[in-house]
Amino acid sequence: MRTLNLPLLSCFLLVANFSTSAQTPLKTLAEKLGYPSDAKLLIVHGDDLGVTHSVNAASIKGLETGAINSASIMVPCPWFPEIADYAKNHPDADFGLHLTLTSERIYYRWGPVAPADKVRSLLDENGYLRHDWTPDTHIDPRQAEIELRAQIERALAMGVRPTHLDSHQYRLDSTNKELFQVALRLSHEFKLPFFVSRDWFADYPYFEPALAQNEVVIDHTITIGPEIAPEKWADFYQDTIRKMKPGVTELVIHFGYDDTEMRAATRERATWGAAWRQRDFDFFTSAEFRRLLEEQDIKLVTWREIARTFRQD
Amino acid sequence: MRTLNLPLLSCFLLVANFSTSAQTPLKTLAEKLGYPSDAKLLIVHGDDLGVTHSVNAASIKGLETGAINSASIMVPCPWFPEIADYAKNHPDADFGLHLTLTSERIYYRWGPVAPADKVRSLLDENGYLRHDWTPDTHIDPRQAEIELRAQIERALAMGVRPTHLDSHQYRLDSTNKELFQVALRLSHEFKLPFFVSRDWFADYPYFEPALAQNEVVIDHTITIGPEIAPEKWADFYQDTIRKMKPGVTELVIHFGYDDTEMRAATRERATWGAAWRQRDFDFFTSAEFRRLLEEQDIKLVTWREIARTFRQD
Repeated sequence: MRTLNLPLLSCFLLVANFSTSAQTPLKTLAEKLGYPSDAKLLIVHGDDLGVTHSVNAASIKGLETGAINSASIMVPCPWFPEIADYAKNHPDADFGLHLTLTSERIYYRWGPVAPADKVRSLLDENGYLRHDWTPDTHIDPRQAEIELRAQIERALAMGVRPTHLDSHQYRLDSTNKELFQVALRLSHEFKLPFFVSRDWFADYPYFEPALAQNEVVIDHTITIGPEIAPEKWADFYQDTIRKMKPGVTELVIHFGYDDTEMRAATRERATWGAAWRQRDFDFFTSAEFRRLLEEQDIKLVTWREIARTFRQD
Repeated sequence: MRTLNLPLLSCFLLVANFSTSAQTPLKTLAEKLGYPSDAKLLIVHGDDLGVTHSVNAASIKGLETGAINSASIMVPCPWFPEIADYAKNHPDADFGLHLTLTSERIYYRWGPVAPADKVRSLLDENGYLRHDWTPDTHIDPRQAEIELRAQIERALAMGVRPTHLDSHQYRLDSTNKELFQVALRLSHEFKLPFFVSRDWFADYPYFEPALAQNEVVIDHTITIGPEIAPEKWADFYQDTIRKMKPGVTELVIHFGYDDTEMRAATRERATWGAAWRQRDFDFFTSAEFRRLLEEQDIKLVTWREIARTFRQD
């Protein structure tokens, strides 16, 4: 089984070639959204809502101040009820579901939404979603589908009206064809676009054959990686935003506060930890970010708008 | 089904009569512990470890400074791995398991340890352990036993070596005979004393017939209730400690910090909330509490010592 080294992925994404594929629609996604095909369109997307109160609080602040305009929610996590309640009471907010098959921390963990005995291949010896997958881990795609359907159904039952689906740690994208097909099946079944970026086609040859002719495909993805030193955070984002290409780009960011809860939950490693998330929060809530968007004539778009093109196809 | 109004219970406990029963052993528990029968012995017991990081951090501080000398852990909760890791690395600490059948908060919740489809009567419509039980809620005692056995087995598998068992929100004590018998069965099976207080015999007539001749029974319980105004917290504890009777008393307290995480997790009501737990922390870590113990010639005992008398019987 092919597994993903996320720090490496971050590098790959930034250097990946733009590949013109058989799935390239006659109209670009930008055009379907009502913009010229050379418009620079951006989704500023917060990941991992539900994981902790700290992430929820910072992400809600981000949504309410316009620092982010879209986000996705992890249903199996302990603070899901808090963000589900917020989503139910803010039906215009652009929330997707961050489909989750791992519980990647050490001191703070969660189990599956589906009955444990129906999804054994996803669980470790203590009954939590696995900390990580190795090439020897067999993840049964039917069990992954059972678990992810249970996540979507719990979200719907609790009043979330998601605009899209994406995959925590890109597990559904980067592992193998079978899991990618699970994601696409759920996307079609629930009529919710699944986040796929054209940037990734070169690295994952099973993407293009699996995609339907009318599938939504985002043009580019930007995400910061551990190779960027903390003091270079703003430089990286400024540089990347200045170099943004035409088409729809998703900027995948991770909001949270560098507070007691977040530090405790992520203390075993710095990657995607408390200070990392505070740096993301600080940059995207800054006046500098707003200024850059204007300077570069970048327009913001949401998954809700994109989903409309998906359903019309 | 009889359900428990916890604030009322707190009052009941304080006024309950000392009932001499058929189960009164020939030797008192104090004597079995090597003290004269008129000695005043105290367990200062922290509840709810595992529920949040805030509770874990405050309780660890309490254990390490001697403010509490025993505590019990909620296995289904998200921060269980943190406290299990601590327990594994501090094998002399006096940790029991706080057997948990409810998930009583609104914005922050947990599900069962056992497979959901094996314990349906314990779950709400979204798959969490129920927020509360009403007289119409049917809790299947066989399912409760499956869930609680799964909790004990997860704790053992993750390196916790518990000294005792007790029941979150007294659900196993106060609901009905069948659930009380589940607790006693698990207690005997795992050779871990289950916290029962003689104070409760008058209110729960099914206690005495269910107890074996050699069962461990604590003499008294003290716990604060919502009828005590915040500014009277220290007065209540001072007064109660001064009035402590001979025999073994368990002081059931709830440590936590009045911090962002704890406030968010408990924000829907003040009872057992963030400020409540900070007040408990502040009183029991004070010099005043230590002074009172000396003044009243109160000796501290642990569940580990009590468990030895249970196993020897």
